[in-house]
Amino acid sequence: MSTNLAFRGVIPPVVTPDTKDHQLDVVSFERSVNRMINAGVDGLFFLGSSGEVVFATDERRDQIVREAVRIVAGRVPVLVGIIDTQTERVLEHGHRALEAGADALVATAPFYALGGIAEIEEHFRILHAELDAPLFAYDIPVCVHTKLPWKLLARLGAEGVLAGVKDSSGDDASFRYLVQENEKNGHPMALLTGHEIVVDGALLAGADGSVPGLANVEPEGYVRMWKAAQEGDWASVKREQDRLNEISHIFDVTSGVQGYGAGVGAFKCALHLMGVFDTPQMPRPVRPLSAENTEAIRTVLVENNLL
Amino acid sequence: MSTNLAFRGVIPPVVTPDTKDHQLDVVSFERSVNRMINAGVDGLFFLGSSGEVVFATDERRDQIVREAVRIVAGRVPVLVGIIDTQTERVLEHGHRALEAGADALVATAPFYALGGIAEIEEHFRILHAELDAPLFAYDIPVCVHTKLPWKLLARLGAEGVLAGVKDSSGDDASFRYLVQENEKNGHPMALLTGHEIVVDGALLAGADGSVPGLANVEPEGYVRMWKAAQEGDWASVKREQDRLNEISHIFDVTSGVQGYGAGVGAFKCALHLMGVFDTPQMPRPVRPLSAENTEAIRTVLVENNLL
Amino acid sequence: MSTNLAFRGVIPPVVTPDTKDHQLDVVSFERSVNRMINAGVDGLFFLGSSGEVVFATDERRDQIVREAVRIVAGRVPVLVGIIDTQTERVLEHGHRALEAGADALVATAPFYALGGIAEIEEHFRILHAELDAPLFAYDIPVCVHTKLPWKLLARLGAEGVLAGVKDSSGDDASFRYLVQENEKNGHPMALLTGHEIVVDGALLAGADGSVPGLANVEPEGYVRMWKAAQEGDWASVKREQDRLNEISHIFDVTSGVQGYGAGVGAFKCALHLMGVFDTPQMPRPVRPLSAENTEAIRTVLVENNLL
Amino acid sequence: MSTNLAFRGVIPPVVTPDTKDHQLDVVSFERSVNRMINAGVDGLFFLGSSGEVVFATDERRDQIVREAVRIVAGRVPVLVGIIDTQTERVLEHGHRALEAGADALVATAPFYALGGIAEIEEHFRILHAELDAPLFAYDIPVCVHTKLPWKLLARLGAEGVLAGVKDSSGDDASFRYLVQENEKNGHPMALLTGHEIVVDGALLAGADGSVPGLANVEPEGYVRMWKAAQEGDWASVKREQDRLNEISHIFDVTSGVQGYGAGVGAFKCALHLMGVFDTPQMPRPVRPLSAENTEAIRTVLVENNLL
Repeated sequence: MSTNLAFRGVIPPVVTPDTKDHQLDVVSFERSVNRMINAGVDGLFFLGSSGEVVFATDERRDQIVREAVRIVAGRVPVLVGIIDTQTERVLEHGHRALEAGADALVATAPFYALGGIAEIEEHFRILHAELDAPLFAYDIPVCVHTKLPWKLLARLGAEGVLAGVKDSSGDDASFRYLVQENEKNGHPMALLTGHEIVVDGALLAGADGSVPGLANVEPEGYVRMWKAAQEGDWASVKREQDRLNEISHIFDVTSGVQGYGAGVGAFKCALHLMGVFDTPQMPRPVRPLSAENTEAIRTVLVENNLL
Repeated sequence: MSTNLAFRGVIPPVVTPDTKDHQLDVVSFERSVNRMINAGVDGLFFLGSSGEVVFATDERRDQIVREAVRIVAGRVPVLVGIIDTQTERVLEHGHRALEAGADALVATAPFYALGGIAEIEEHFRILHAELDAPLFAYDIPVCVHTKLPWKLLARLGAEGVLAGVKDSSGDDASFRYLVQENEKNGHPMALLTGHEIVVDGALLAGADGSVPGLANVEPEGYVRMWKAAQEGDWASVKREQDRLNEISHIFDVTSGVQGYGAGVGAFKCALHLMGVFDTPQMPRPVRPLSAENTEAIRTVLVENNLL
Repeated sequence: MSTNLAFRGVIPPVVTPDTKDHQLDVVSFERSVNRMINAGVDGLFFLGSSGEVVFATDERRDQIVREAVRIVAGRVPVLVGIIDTQTERVLEHGHRALEAGADALVATAPFYALGGIAEIEEHFRILHAELDAPLFAYDIPVCVHTKLPWKLLARLGAEGVLAGVKDSSGDDASFRYLVQENEKNGHPMALLTGHEIVVDGALLAGADGSVPGLANVEPEGYVRMWKAAQEGDWASVKREQDRLNEISHIFDVTSGVQGYGAGVGAFKCALHLMGVFDTPQMPRPVRPLSAENTEAIRTVLVENNLL
Repeated sequence: MSTNLAFRGVIPPVVTPDTKDHQLDVVSFERSVNRMINAGVDGLFFLGSSGEVVFATDERRDQIVREAVRIVAGRVPVLVGIIDTQTERVLEHGHRALEAGADALVATAPFYALGGIAEIEEHFRILHAELDAPLFAYDIPVCVHTKLPWKLLARLGAEGVLAGVKDSSGDDASFRYLVQENEKNGHPMALLTGHEIVVDGALLAGADGSVPGLANVEPEGYVRMWKAAQEGDWASVKREQDRLNEISHIFDVTSGVQGYGAGVGAFKCALHLMGVFDTPQMPRPVRPLSAENTEAIRTVLVENNLL
C-alpha cells in the first residue's frame, strides 16, 4: 500500500472551539477530538477552512497544532492546513507545522494576487521541494477563486509532488476525472472529497475518503458510510448519506447570516447545544448565531435525535 | 405511478444536425433519433441547449419539433425546450411547440434582464397556467446565470406547477437536497440530472433519470447504466459510468475552442466520424472543429471502440 | 464628418410604457418621446435593455419600432436594439427593424450558448454583411456575460464593420482605451457611454456622447451637460452630473427589489409620478414597485424639484 | 483642513524591488522612492497589492516598512498596507507597521473566509479601535472578492472610523456616489482612486487624489495632472492622462502571462530597463517576463520617450 493511503477513510476538518474571550478552548477541543477518534475516524485535518486557519494568528496556529498532536497522540494521522496567500508565507507555516508534529500538510492555490496555472504549479513544486512531509492540494475555489485543474493535479500526483487532494470544489465531474486518471497512474494519490452532502456518489466513483465538516457533529454516520462502502453495501451508503443530509439542514434553517458565520456558526452552535463545545463563540469579526437561529438549529438536532 | 414518472430513465438532449448550407439535415436527424430509440432510451429532449435552440429561428424551431414528432411517432415521450429570455417570448414558443405535438415543455429561468427569485417563481407559475402540458424547470446557470433554488423547485413541484426538473447546474449537493425533499413530498416530480459524468452518483441518490448529451454518441451505455441502477447493481452502474467518461474526453482533447464550439462541436464531430451525421456543420457564428481537433476526437473514439 | 457622427450627443435608451393589461401604451410613449426630443436629445435608442426588448414578442417589437418611427418623424435618428441570443435570430430582428424604419441597429455579443472571441467577431461580421444599416456594438456584460474587448471593437471600427459602440460595461478603463485607439484610427466610430453616473468623465476623455437611461426622467440635464462639454466648460459638466446623480438615487432608495425591477421599475415609477406615463406597469414576470418604494422615489423626485 | 487631507494628491503604491536571490533590493528601493519624491508625489503607499505585500513574510514586511520610513525621512506621509485574511492577523500587521513608523494604515475587507457586510463593518471598527493611526479602507474586489458598499464607507467616514478610501474597484459609479456623499458629510475622508487609466474623470468628479501604480514608472505625469486639476485646467488633465495611458500599454503588449505576473511584471521590467531597478526579479512563485515580452515593453517605453 502506498504510504499516501495512510490518509484515507473519514478525515474530518476539525472545528476549533473558542472561549468567550477568544482564546483556544483546550478542554472543548480535547473533548471534540476524542469524540471523533472514538467514533472511528481515520484521520483529522486541523487548521482547515472551517478550523479558523485564516482567523488565527501564527502563534494561535502553533498552539492549535501542538495541542492537536498532544491530544491525538498518534491514534490517527494529523493533517495540518498551511493556508496563506503566497509561497513564502505558506512555506513558513509548513515549517512551523512540521516542527509542531504534523504528519501531512495541506495547501491551497496561491490567492489574493492573481496568477495562472504556471504559478500554481510552481507553488506546489516549491512546497514539495522544501517541506519534508506528504503534501495535499486543497481545491477550494470558493475561498481562493481558482479551480485546480484535474489534469495538473493528476500529473503532480504521478510525479510524486502531491500525496493527495482534498476536493472542496463542489465540481464532482472534475473530481471524477481525477479519480479515474489517478487510477490509471497506479493510484499514487489519496483523493478525498469535501463535498459532504454527496460523499456516497464520490465513494461509488472510487474516492479514497472524505473530509466532511459535518462529521464534527455526527462522526458515526460518516464512519458507518465509509465501512458500508468498503463492503460494497451501496444501499446502506446511500441511507447513511440521506440521514446525514437531514442533519446538514443546520446550514439552511438560519437567516440573516451567510458564509462562515452560517456554516461554521451552525457547527459551533450545534456542538455547543450538544455539550461538546462550552461556547458557540466565533472568531472576530464574526458573531455567534442569534437566539432565533440557535432555536432553529436545536429543532433540526432534536428531529434527528442528536438532542 | 404519477404521470410525471412517464418522464424517467434516459432522456438524451438531442443534438441537431445541419447541412452544409445551414439547413436542418432531416436525414441525419432521423438516423440519430432512431439510433437512440433503438438503443432503448426512455424519452428525447429536443431543442435543449445542445439542440441549437438559441441558434434556431422560430421557423427552424417549429421545423425541428414537427420532424421530431414525426420521427419519434409516439415511441417515447417528446420533451421540447422553450428557451427564450422572458415570459411572453417563452409562452409563444410553448404554444407553438404544443401545436407541433410536444408531450412536455422545458423552460429555464428568465435571462438577460436581471431579476430575483420572485420573478423566477412568477415566470414558472405563468407558464404552468397558460401552457397545457407537463412543465419541466431547466436549471442551467452556466447559460442563464441564475441557479434555481431547490427549495423553490420542491415547492413548485408539490403545488403541481412543475412536473419535473432537468438539472444541468453541476451542483450535486443542491440536486441531492431536491431529491430528498421531493421524496418527502410524495415524489410529485421527475428529477433528471444532466451532469452526465456523474450520473451514477445521482442514480444512487435517487434521481429519476438522466439527460446526457453524450448519449447522442453512445446511448447504449447510459441505457445499461439505468437498467443496472434499477436492479441495484451499483458496481455495474459505476463501471458503465467510468467507460462513458473515457468517451467523454472528446470534450477535452481539443484546443483553441471553448463553450458550445468545443462541447456540441465534439458531439457533431464524433457523430460525423461515426457516420450518424452527414456533416459536422455548426450553426453560425460557430465554426466546425479544425482537422487537428477532429483527429484528436477520432483517437478517443478509436480507443473506445466506437470507430 | 463621418456619417457615424450623426449618432452623437445624448441618445437616451427609451423606456417603454405598458398599459395595465400589458399592451404598449402608445399615448404615454408618444408623450415621453416628444418630451425628450423637445428637451434637445440628439437621437433615441429603442428596444434597448431598459426598453423591454427581451420581454417583448416579435410582434410587440415591430409595433414599438413602427410607433417610434412614426412619432420621431425624422426629427432625430432612431437606433433600434436587435437583441437576441445568436446570429440567425438577431438577423431576423435586424431585417424587421429596418423594414419598420430604423436608422441604425444595435446588437450585443451572442449569449446563452457560450463561446469565445472568434464567435463574437464572426457574429458582428455577419450582421454587418447582411444588414444594410450602421451597426453599433452593445457592450453589456451584466446581461450577456461577455465583455467585448476594446482591441476587437477598435479593429472592427477601423474596418467599417461597426459604426459605433454603446458601452454599458461599466469598465471605464476599457472604454478610455477604445476612445484613444478610435482617435488614432481617424475616429471612424461614434463611441457612446451608457455609464450614466460618470458621463462627465467619459466626455472629458473624448466620448462622442451618452446613452443614459436616466434621461427618460430628466433629459434636460444630460443635454445641458453635453452642450457644456462641447464648450469645454468642465465645471458645468461636473455640476450637471452631480445633480443628475442625486436624481439617480431613485435606483437605491427602494428595498426588496433588484435588477430590472429596481432599475426600470424606478424609471417607470418616476415617470408615472411625473405624469409622463399613465401607469408604472412592468412586463411579466416583473411586478411594479410597492407603495412603500413608490413613496421613497417620490421623496427623491421632490427633493430634486421634479415634483 | 482635516488631518485626513494630509493624504491627498498623488500617492503611488510603491513597487518593491527584489535581488536575484529574492531579498529586498535596498539600493533599488531607495533609488525608486527618491525618484518619486523628487518628482513631487504627495505620499507613498508601501505594501499595497503591487508592493508584494501578500508575497512577503512578516519579517520581510517589517524590513520594507523600516527601510521605507528611513528613506522617506518625513518628506511625505508613509501609508502602509496591512493586508491579511481576517481581523486578528490584520491587527498584528497594524501594530508592527506602527512600531516601524507608518503614518497611516490601509486595510482591505476580510477575505478567504466568506462573510457579509456585518463582518466587514465589524472588521473596520475593530481595526480603528485598536490601531492608533488614520485608517484607509482599500476597496479591491478583484483580490478580496467583495465590493465595499459606498454607503457603508460614507457612514464609517462620517463616524470617524475611516480616514479615507483607496478605491481599486474599477467601479467609478460607486466611487462617484461616495465622493458626493462624503462631500455632504463635510468631507471627512480623503478619497483616492486607484483606477490609474481614468484618474482625470475621478479628479473632475472631486476625488482627493490618486494611487496609480504607473507612477512608479512615470511619476511626473501624474504630478502634472494633479496640479492641472488643482488649477481647473481640464484640457491639460485630459492630455496628461492620454499620454500616461499610452505608457500603460506595457500591461497589454505582453502575452502568455496574466494577473500579477503581467501587471507588476511589466512595472519591474520597465523599471529595470530604465535603470531604476537592478533586476526585474519577481517573488516566488511568479517568474520574470520572457525576453520577448521584455522587448515588447521596451518598444512601448521607447515610443513614449522613456528610453
